[in-house]
Amino acid sequence: MSPAKLDSTQIESLLPSLEGWHLNGDGSGIERTFTFRDFSEAFGFMCRVALVAEKMNHHPDWFNAYKTVQVCLSTHDIGGVSENDVELARAMDRIAG
Amino acid sequence: MSPAKLDSTQIESLLPSLEGWHLNGDGSGIERTFTFRDFSEAFGFMCRVALVAEKMNHHPDWFNAYKTVQVCLSTHDIGGVSENDVELARAMDRIAG
Repeated sequence: MSPAKLDSTQIESLLPSLEGWHLNGDGSGIERTFTFRDFSEAFGFMCRVALVAEKMNHHPDWFNAYKTVQVCLSTHDIGGVSENDVELARAMDRIAG
Repeated sequence: MSPAKLDSTQIESLLPSLEGWHLNGDGSGIERTFTFRDFSEAFGFMCRVALVAEKMNHHPDWFNAYKTVQVCLSTHDIGGVSENDVELARAMDRIAG
């Protein structure tokens, strides 16, 4: 069963508990850009997140250029944001420290 | 010293020796999209490429969504494509098998 789609009010109320995430333009996902010291640190972050994502069977859309990682989390099955995205965002915040 | 910038004639003559790469719209980089079976395979590819990139001190700009990896290789110092990009593209082709 697909997780429930959160409405914009629910998402806005959850965002303050995350670090630096915002709802994207069309409301289909939440986004954050992480900046690290160098590629090694950025890719190390991605490796740790990949293990969590694979375990959750819920994966990020992400772009990496050297020391930055731009992330968009969305639950494609429901065309929006679900609890799974919030959980993965929280894990990313924790891993990024 | 920065590597030499290849001109579009040089790049076009090198592309046939690569697999599925094309010059991007403004000629500043070469691009390819890799598609794998699943996230595990896509991210495994990225891990192997990351080790090569770090060793070369030449890193890709890349976007991953589940089983696809879209790559743009460019030598930012020179605002264009250099031998380093061709070498990294070749390594990616080899790793993707």
